Amino acid sequence: MREQQVNVGIIGLGTVGTGVARILLQQRELLKTRSTVTFNLKTIAELDWQKDRGLDLTGVKCTTNADELLDDPDINIVVETIGGYEPAFTFIKRALQNRKHVVTANKALIATRGKELFKTARENGVDLLFEASVGGGIPIIKGLREGLIANRIKSIYGILNGTCNYILTRMHQDELEFSEALKGAQEKGFAEADPTLDISGGDSAHKLTILGSIATNSFIPFDKLYIEGITGISKLDINFAKTLGYTIKLLAIYQAFKDGVDLRVHPTLVNNFHLLSAVSNELNAIFVQGDFVGSTMFYGPGAGERPTASAIACDIVDLSRDLLLKEGERYCNRTINPNMDVKLIPIDEVSNRFYLRFFTKDMPGVLAKISGSLARYNISISSMVQLETHGKDNYVPIVILTHEALERSMKLALEEISQFEFVKDDYLRLRIF
Amino acid sequence: MREQQVNVGIIGLGTVGTGVARILLQQRELLKTRSTVTFNLKTIAELDWQKDRGLDLTGVKCTTNADELLDDPDINIVVETIGGYEPAFTFIKRALQNRKHVVTANKALIATRGKELFKTARENGVDLLFEASVGGGIPIIKGLREGLIANRIKSIYGILNGTCNYILTRMHQDELEFSEALKGAQEKGFAEADPTLDISGGDSAHKLTILGSIATNSFIPFDKLYIEGITGISKLDINFAKTLGYTIKLLAIYQAFKDGVDLRVHPTLVNNFHLLSAVSNELNAIFVQGDFVGSTMFYGPGAGERPTASAIACDIVDLSRDLLLKEGERYCNRTINPNMDVKLIPIDEVSNRFYLRFFTKDMPGVLAKISGSLARYNISISSMVQLETHGKDNYVPIVILTHEALERSMKLALEEISQFEFVKDDYLRLRIF
Repeated sequence: MREQQVNVGIIGLGTVGTGVARILLQQRELLKTRSTVTFNLKTIAELDWQKDRGLDLTGVKCTTNADELLDDPDINIVVETIGGYEPAFTFIKRALQNRKHVVTANKALIATRGKELFKTARENGVDLLFEASVGGGIPIIKGLREGLIANRIKSIYGILNGTCNYILTRMHQDELEFSEALKGAQEKGFAEADPTLDISGGDSAHKLTILGSIATNSFIPFDKLYIEGITGISKLDINFAKTLGYTIKLLAIYQAFKDGVDLRVHPTLVNNFHLLSAVSNELNAIFVQGDFVGSTMFYGPGAGERPTASAIACDIVDLSRDLLLKEGERYCNRTINPNMDVKLIPIDEVSNRFYLRFFTKDMPGVLAKISGSLARYNISISSMVQLETHGKDNYVPIVILTHEALERSMKLALEEISQFEFVKDDYLRLRIF
Repeated sequence: MREQQVNVGIIGLGTVGTGVARILLQQRELLKTRSTVTFNLKTIAELDWQKDRGLDLTGVKCTTNADELLDDPDINIVVETIGGYEPAFTFIKRALQNRKHVVTANKALIATRGKELFKTARENGVDLLFEASVGGGIPIIKGLREGLIANRIKSIYGILNGTCNYILTRMHQDELEFSEALKGAQEKGFAEADPTLDISGGDSAHKLTILGSIATNSFIPFDKLYIEGITGISKLDINFAKTLGYTIKLLAIYQAFKDGVDLRVHPTLVNNFHLLSAVSNELNAIFVQGDFVGSTMFYGPGAGERPTASAIACDIVDLSRDLLLKEGERYCNRTINPNMDVKLIPIDEVSNRFYLRFFTKDMPGVLAKISGSLARYNISISSMVQLETHGKDNYVPIVILTHEALERSMKLALEEISQFEFVKDDYLRLRIF
């Protein structure tokens, strides 16, 4: 077997970058045994060299200047682990232009500006890999792109954000309100100081965009996704869901139809018979359905220094194989063709089952009016709960589950119902999976 | 991108071979889009050409003579889907010697005679892939070998046999005895006419051998595994397990210790809080724990024409990449080094928690004697159930759960207990996970 040495450079020594340095140093022999390649961590660019990261960087060139890595002809693979849009984008683009393979965990960047980066990669005959961008350590991208390569992907759905799943699990198990659960998550390090991107559903949507792009072999426009976060979920709704045999999860959903694809992120009632309902805390789980394989599921830690490093190391090893190929034979991100288009079906045209929760005045005729509105828009009720709990003020909560109905119809029915003076305006509409 | 065409030959057009032919024909365009390769199904060798398999084989050379494929210099990849030991072994070996890459789903062959086949592959600079041999359509081998390549694998455990899982699920959900559930499984096509290999645990052990070999990068000797099947499980035990909050599953378990590895297959009480307890019917699920990634799980259909074809197609596409490399650069099954040895820890030296079920005469002193024996071998009881059900004859069932104890100690204690004349000899010892 021919000896192969690959020189790796890392830009950014935060949590993820530290993990990548650690795995390359610590598992060097293991990686050599398994891949026959010697991975040499040559250079790290990082602005803050004061912090002690518990790494022995003897023999590694430590610099504050990313150019020393981007312009080094000996570096074969650049790992970008600074996150955010800039300067990450500029660094990745320059690395690709300098014909270096690039690995990143930067889901926001891939989802929003991946098109340009993939084009740059193709033009320069190199690859941009991003296994760690979805599902942390779970090899979901490899599983989808390679393991299920011979399948037309019918649907992908799952829990892609550990922060939201942790918060919802705490709300379910400890009977907390959203704000209390969020605070707990921040204290335990499962939520950022500014948790907006997570709890708004934006992070899940970034990841869904990436999975959808692989499934369709095109580039899904992130800005067209329907995204709803979990901030509107209350303890009351969690309890109603429980009573009805459901668990509320933030799901990211991709479905392929004949006339286009449906991608959306929203809190969802998952039946307790479904395996996803049992995926708790900060864990992630993704179902993938293909026309040959049927239904498969990938489960594991969606974030963290070590799981993320595991995924990035997988990309690095894969790229060492690419380096053996002639330029014209490389993959060059053929999986996501930046020039291929796919039609997104607007949420209005999608059908779902719904969970509706209203606070209404406790008086005659309320139910008749609400059900009348639903009927007018062809929405049929599958079950209804009005417990003798005393709601806020003089209002009582009513929960209605519907059969499948068009989103557009539901929107119109809710506009009508919310006009009734006996209905408080903080009603909630969730979807049922 | 350079045009690449790969010629594929299939030996054996049973369920799996038919699936492979179908996927290659039906997904030809999809595979080309995703891999840039044209996969040409050139030849199929099969003895029975009378059967209608619903395939349009126009342009495919159909023969009854495997030589026409093994000796054809144009065939790049041979897919072996006849199963069994011979002539499968001879065909695979000849294909490798003729420097063709080989794909197989033949777990029995890989587990028992893989060592020789991997050596032959290495000597001839070609690869022998076997994604479909474990977990059917689930890309578990790719996930383990590539996705988690940078991890030392601490443990692998899961449900690897769909037949047993279907039988146990039916016993749990429909309150059936083993023989009734087996009969149902045979009627529904989830069990073979001769189900011995499945229900004895042998099939799970074949698969575990393969996973363990990948995890250790050596070749695990199949004949040293501890294997126990599910034929001894009764409705009574299922119900006791249920009462205690457990589900009985046939688990395949791999654990790495400092001084060796522990591999075994046996029915196991799985706590209902664990995700594995919810994996029902014919489905498979495998947990893999690595030192960086933590705990991951792969789930899906473990058998069937289409899932198996999905996995074989994945191997075929991977091999098309290998074909682009120079001989010395190919993987050649480096993942499992047939020359590397690893120490297997005998079951006697392993510790487990135990479930013990006895039928004893309903008389004073019984419990004192049984618990005395357990104490003598340092086995401590964690809980005990003696229901007022009336057992067989004049015997009543007693169930004891123990804390962790050495297998050797349990064996000795059971030898002693089984000598008591008040204990019927059809006692049951299961392990708790």
